[in-house]
Amino acid sequence: MYKQELINTHTRIKPYIHNTPVLTSRLINKVAGANLYFKCENFQRMGAFKMRGATNAIMQLSESEKHHGVVTHSSGNFAQALALAAKELGVKSYIVMPNNAPEVKKKAVKDYGASIIECEPTLEAREKASKEIQETKGATFIHPSNDIAVILGQGTATKELLEQQPNLDYIFAPVGGGGLVAGTILAATHFGKDCKIIGGEPFEVDDAYRSLQSGKIESNNSTHTLADGLKTQLGEHNFPIIREGIERIIRVTEAEIIHAMKMMWERLKIVCEPSSAVAFAALLREKDPFKSKNIGIIVSGGNVDLTNLPF
Amino acid sequence: MYKQELINTHTRIKPYIHNTPVLTSRLINKVAGANLYFKCENFQRMGAFKMRGATNAIMQLSESEKHHGVVTHSSGNFAQALALAAKELGVKSYIVMPNNAPEVKKKAVKDYGASIIECEPTLEAREKASKEIQETKGATFIHPSNDIAVILGQGTATKELLEQQPNLDYIFAPVGGGGLVAGTILAATHFGKDCKIIGGEPFEVDDAYRSLQSGKIESNNSTHTLADGLKTQLGEHNFPIIREGIERIIRVTEAEIIHAMKMMWERLKIVCEPSSAVAFAALLREKDPFKSKNIGIIVSGGNVDLTNLPF
Repeated sequence: MYKQELINTHTRIKPYIHNTPVLTSRLINKVAGANLYFKCENFQRMGAFKMRGATNAIMQLSESEKHHGVVTHSSGNFAQALALAAKELGVKSYIVMPNNAPEVKKKAVKDYGASIIECEPTLEAREKASKEIQETKGATFIHPSNDIAVILGQGTATKELLEQQPNLDYIFAPVGGGGLVAGTILAATHFGKDCKIIGGEPFEVDDAYRSLQSGKIESNNSTHTLADGLKTQLGEHNFPIIREGIERIIRVTEAEIIHAMKMMWERLKIVCEPSSAVAFAALLREKDPFKSKNIGIIVSGGNVDLTNLPF
Repeated sequence: MYKQELINTHTRIKPYIHNTPVLTSRLINKVAGANLYFKCENFQRMGAFKMRGATNAIMQLSESEKHHGVVTHSSGNFAQALALAAKELGVKSYIVMPNNAPEVKKKAVKDYGASIIECEPTLEAREKASKEIQETKGATFIHPSNDIAVILGQGTATKELLEQQPNLDYIFAPVGGGGLVAGTILAATHFGKDCKIIGGEPFEVDDAYRSLQSGKIESNNSTHTLADGLKTQLGEHNFPIIREGIERIIRVTEAEIIHAMKMMWERLKIVCEPSSAVAFAALLREKDPFKSKNIGIIVSGGNVDLTNLPF
């Protein structure tokens, strides 16, 4: 299921995205005891894999829907992704952001030509504001992770990775809202050779880990993690894919995230955000089962405040 | 001249080096008003282009010379490069380092299996210590920049860049000891299509700029620059190549180096050292003559202390 859709998606969005480089480090391989291939979506346009899903979701709309624009609520990478993708495709975008979002994030979204709608920093206020835009402007709501067009878009990162490294035994991906890991599962199923997916998730926001255990979508009581891209919960479209296709989720501490992130900066020489170090941190935490294996690591994004680093 | 040597050099060292990625950024192109192609030697093994020259220099030795090992004096990237290249090639290496070199640099060199010889932090002491190793161990001295085998090795970065982007109008490279820029000139002459070379150099250590003016090798009175890889002066092997082949040198302030480096971290999402931002800083300082041109930028290295950043 979804094989042809993934191929079509990739063909569709290719002109708008980068085929990002895959980096390796002998020293990191030595530390990890395995052969690691880092798929660097921090080099993706606007700095994260989200550009893939946002582009695909907009391109799947009808001409009439495109004419009325798109709306989402996000203060993170998906806000920028939808704004840039919409701009590239000549579509109007409305981004609902909490009024306490950092100015730099608002500016980035504005620079991509989106209209920002500010609201109180609650989920209720965000959803209400989004609804209003849908009703008054006729804009189509695009969810950052719980949307099959978005999920298929995110999966193209893994499709590219497997085109370059066909013999991966495992791919590690961070688990936040579940769009990336669900797309990773679909792509690995169809383009890998018995390639298994491992999720990385912070202990502080382990809703997905608990959802797998309970069999229903759990949420987080607190969200005290550096990995600010991973605070959101799974949705009804991606949870079944994840439940069926994921091998397991490995949880990591905040200290492990910082350690992994620093090693990626020092050894891979890349700027990546804490969320994107969670997958690598998961591998470093549990090396034994993965000894000498060929392992892909999805580096999800690189949008980080350089003046406020955790090391 | 040197065309066949460059081809042979590249073939020779290929198994030991990375063909590093070339990165682009639409936003940076907009800021620069030109099409920029960043050749990311910060992703090279041990984190800098120096691995190319060091590998080539050792491979050019006779079996008897290899048997007695190699020696250099450096506290920077060439120390690590020679140590790692020697290790890979099964050759003993001796690295003369000033006794005030940071522990982290000594450790990196030791980890690559080299013997460190500490000396007083003066050029005189360094040369004396190197001489002693040559005499007592029979080791061959390899100069970090003023050696034709090293220069040819460094030139392979530009050969790769032009293989990927054949229509570059200019390549910008930082100017330190002159090995990189001389190699860049040789490779651009033979593999480019009327591709001109521009050097970037800090005002604080503008010995090469002054050497071009006076026609003889000048040195620096003070060396107060963040670009610690660019403090050394030109030599009799690379100066003639540079004098004949360089279009011009653009000097930059320390603030311009920091600004360029920060933009590379933020927009390209790469970790690069101040020295490696000098070429890009030179372009940002003088954009007008390069408007709409295709421009390669050599990002020379990425070895930087993450806990002591200039921004």
